[in-house]
Amino acid sequence: MTREFAETLHAGYTQTFAMTRVLADERSDFQHIQLFENPAFGRVLALDGIVQITERDEHTYSEMMAHPPIYEHGRVERVMIAGGGDGAVAEEVLKHPSVRTVDLVDIDRRVVELAREFLGSVHGDAFADSRLRVHFDDAARFLETRRDTYDLIIADRPDPVGAATSLFSESFYRTVAAALRGTGIAVFQSGVPFFQEDELRDVCRGMRSVWAGVATYLAVTSTYTGGLMAITRGCRVPLSGSALDAAVERCRRDPPSTRTYTPDVHRAAYALPAWMRAITDAP
Amino acid sequence: MTREFAETLHAGYTQTFAMTRVLADERSDFQHIQLFENPAFGRVLALDGIVQITERDEHTYSEMMAHPPIYEHGRVERVMIAGGGDGAVAEEVLKHPSVRTVDLVDIDRRVVELAREFLGSVHGDAFADSRLRVHFDDAARFLETRRDTYDLIIADRPDPVGAATSLFSESFYRTVAAALRGTGIAVFQSGVPFFQEDELRDVCRGMRSVWAGVATYLAVTSTYTGGLMAITRGCRVPLSGSALDAAVERCRRDPPSTRTYTPDVHRAAYALPAWMRAITDAP
Repeated sequence: MTREFAETLHAGYTQTFAMTRVLADERSDFQHIQLFENPAFGRVLALDGIVQITERDEHTYSEMMAHPPIYEHGRVERVMIAGGGDGAVAEEVLKHPSVRTVDLVDIDRRVVELAREFLGSVHGDAFADSRLRVHFDDAARFLETRRDTYDLIIADRPDPVGAATSLFSESFYRTVAAALRGTGIAVFQSGVPFFQEDELRDVCRGMRSVWAGVATYLAVTSTYTGGLMAITRGCRVPLSGSALDAAVERCRRDPPSTRTYTPDVHRAAYALPAWMRAITDAP
Repeated sequence: MTREFAETLHAGYTQTFAMTRVLADERSDFQHIQLFENPAFGRVLALDGIVQITERDEHTYSEMMAHPPIYEHGRVERVMIAGGGDGAVAEEVLKHPSVRTVDLVDIDRRVVELAREFLGSVHGDAFADSRLRVHFDDAARFLETRRDTYDLIIADRPDPVGAATSLFSESFYRTVAAALRGTGIAVFQSGVPFFQEDELRDVCRGMRSVWAGVATYLAVTSTYTGGLMAITRGCRVPLSGSALDAAVERCRRDPPSTRTYTPDVHRAAYALPAWMRAITDAP
């Protein structure tokens, strides 16, 4: 009989994956790590019972976390990724020749070790790239010693439960802002607003207290149930229409090899449904 | 103990809804109809074990099936809805004062009766609108006697299994095309391509054999698992960039009351991810 993995993240709703093969099931110092194979999604990584990434849909997430802010900035050299131990976002960032260093800071060494062993299709050659440095540390603590350093900080954070709660605090946003240099950009995974309205509202409020330029854009990842996922980006400078035009144009001239992201998808990602706009713009 | 409704539409993946109250569970002449309440989605209608509509996310589907083609056409007067017995799409269509008649053709009288009894928040006042006429008939048969009649035909069809298979055939597309008048538009629910690649490929191929203007746009409905849902639209005339501009401008001047649809969402819906563009454009 096939075993099953059931995720109960939202009240009254469960998604269940058949596990045709279990690759890892262990408790690290920080969390319960499960890695298994599923007929529809390929290899699946779950932390504390919540799906983080799958082979088949990871591009819908990792490309949208990386490429929009890189094209919007225009010349990203120094990048920091908070979390992201699976290497998926790092792979996307490293597609850009302008990028000189990427500091990937994940608190859990075992996530990185298991990803390197089992999730090659997710991170490609990222861990072999000499521009990538992996640090096993708390992301906030790591950033506190690196003021005025990064052009791009990507918070590949999980849901705001357990150990990750601190990554949703206003003090974390202030730490991130201080670690950016110039017109550096920070992007934050901000949940699935269909189920997590309050989360998105709180994120936008918290970020507006730190940045003048806060905007929300969308990605759609099959295994993040509830449909649209929000990504919020903070910058000293608001994202104007002409700045977005320029970003999309930069991409058109020099498109990365992607499966989801395109210049048109980039622009379209900022078109929020009416109900979500009411959440992001709530005072 | 709370009862559960489990939908197994895709291999190795199940979504499960807690049923806090069962409103209906019966077999009509055509299908197994279930109607229940869930903490996250409100009232949920399922046919033959597959979720069709929920109170909480129906606007993400029904608004996107109705408003884009209406603004693209510019003066829709006569509308036909194939399926859609829950009345959700009809409600959206009837928001437009230019619409003079709507023929809603559902094969199953019990779906309409149960929707009228239990899904008021889904269809609003649609069934009380004198412009709406409900017919209990096979959609293809109904259309065969109405050549050159409609400005808009909306195929609110389920997945291509069981009785609905005929709604995915090339002969159905020909019947629909013949029932349109002038530059009338037909839109078709075309599945969730993450799980149903072949379906979208076949739909686009089949429609291109009938219409010169075939295009695909996107909606995201939480309970249609797999993320992006494809809607394909056929018309004698291709949708040019300037025609889309004009449609969006018409909406800006006279926006409907909606929860999802906005002029920006309309335009953005045509930005397909790279992997999906490869499917829709496959020869």
